[in-house]
Amino acid sequence: MRLTEDQLRLYDEQGFLLLPDYISPTEVDLLRAEVPKLYGDKSLRNVVEKEGHATRSVYGCHLVNDFYNRFARHPKLLGPAKQLVDDDVYTYQFKINAKVAFQGDVWKWHQDYIFWRNEDGLPAPRITNVAIFLDEVTEFNGPLFLIPGSHREGVIEVPPLNIRPNGVYKDAPEWISTLTADLKYSVDSSKVAELVERYGITAPKGKPGYAIFFHSNLVHASTINISPFSRTMLLITYNSVTNIPAGVDLARPDFIAGRNYSPLTENESEAAHKKHKSISS
Amino acid sequence: MRLTEDQLRLYDEQGFLLLPDYISPTEVDLLRAEVPKLYGDKSLRNVVEKEGHATRSVYGCHLVNDFYNRFARHPKLLGPAKQLVDDDVYTYQFKINAKVAFQGDVWKWHQDYIFWRNEDGLPAPRITNVAIFLDEVTEFNGPLFLIPGSHREGVIEVPPLNIRPNGVYKDAPEWISTLTADLKYSVDSSKVAELVERYGITAPKGKPGYAIFFHSNLVHASTINISPFSRTMLLITYNSVTNIPAGVDLARPDFIAGRNYSPLTENESEAAHKKHKSISS
Repeated sequence: MRLTEDQLRLYDEQGFLLLPDYISPTEVDLLRAEVPKLYGDKSLRNVVEKEGHATRSVYGCHLVNDFYNRFARHPKLLGPAKQLVDDDVYTYQFKINAKVAFQGDVWKWHQDYIFWRNEDGLPAPRITNVAIFLDEVTEFNGPLFLIPGSHREGVIEVPPLNIRPNGVYKDAPEWISTLTADLKYSVDSSKVAELVERYGITAPKGKPGYAIFFHSNLVHASTINISPFSRTMLLITYNSVTNIPAGVDLARPDFIAGRNYSPLTENESEAAHKKHKSISS
Repeated sequence: MRLTEDQLRLYDEQGFLLLPDYISPTEVDLLRAEVPKLYGDKSLRNVVEKEGHATRSVYGCHLVNDFYNRFARHPKLLGPAKQLVDDDVYTYQFKINAKVAFQGDVWKWHQDYIFWRNEDGLPAPRITNVAIFLDEVTEFNGPLFLIPGSHREGVIEVPPLNIRPNGVYKDAPEWISTLTADLKYSVDSSKVAELVERYGITAPKGKPGYAIFFHSNLVHASTINISPFSRTMLLITYNSVTNIPAGVDLARPDFIAGRNYSPLTENESEAAHKKHKSISS
């Protein structure tokens, strides 16, 4: 599966590419069926919201769940990822962002790459994200807010937020502040206002199975979820195999910064599965 | 100015009535011009957000500002209010909800009437609100979320949230908890989920000058504002002159529960002003 020239150009221009009805309902159902198990994990991989109970994110899903592991090698994800990074890739991160009904908290305005550069020593933004909607994303349940084109600003240097985690995370390792609502690197309001003035904001919405590839320097955020509808989203980050993190401290565990640098190969059985499904449907 | 039979039926059915392009741009500009003065008031009438600086709401605008006082008697507001309440009316509340860019906090799911009944002793929900957009309301700046039809449930009895105000309001009178983000009477999640299942959610959006009349038992909420766009909204509450609060404790000051029970009369100079404008435009 390859993106077209037009799709690649759109990604370059706006820093993201929305792909409606991209993952089949059958596959979405299979992914959703695993979610309760992943939320049941009580290790640090399961990051909870401030109030201490609801899952905020689960990291390293591909390390503990076979189906998720295979899913990272889905031809519809891996093909485009290799094009966008222009290299072979491996799984840098594989997480669920839960944004649970009535409980999902804010993600402040931020870029992703600065976390990976500062915390993991990632040399270059030769890395891409894909977000896959496991629930319908509406205006009510905290859709991603994207500033289209903001990736062209490069890294917006911001000072780290030096707040010790508190509440449930008061004794957690320092890196927890790269994952919680008190986010370590966020873009300040005046800069966001300037970027939105220049580029606008957009909030892609759509049914389960929609996917968005987005650039690691794209400025994005999401609000709290006060609706009765969870906004479960899968996020896979693919890094170039020649862009291995090194030089900083690699303090974050492998469920946040993957250590298996072998190039991913397309999961042919998954492709076959899809072919079978499309024949039978 | 009178609402049509269809408009009245719609209000009865859905609990609100959206009126696009209702207040003229000239009048909106005049209203907006007064806002900085009102935010400058450092009394308890100016309720601030949790962090202690940004204005959350300003109450009793009509008591301190002549233009706002006259505006409450605008024929396009007073005419429909009298129809909806089926009586002469007076100003029960007149506030600005600021929902300031990057700082506006949540309004939890709630009904208005339960506050007025429990705190002020308001005998019946013979009272209506009108919200007037002073900024464009978009999907990004915390629009009102309404559950259309939920007013037909009547009062949803909920226990008060017994949290003492803290931070900037730790020494404030108890009634402050009827105005802050830790809202005293809110509808719990399971009830909201049930209502949304039955009735859905809608979030009216539109340009400055749009107005929404809504029922005092309509369940509504709004999320935080993480956008660079403030969502300034004027809210006037008109109560029937034969529905005077009595019997509880009337502990809240007159800028929250108005004490001037004289029937409002239409401001003819305002009507004349409008006529003049429409001729000159």
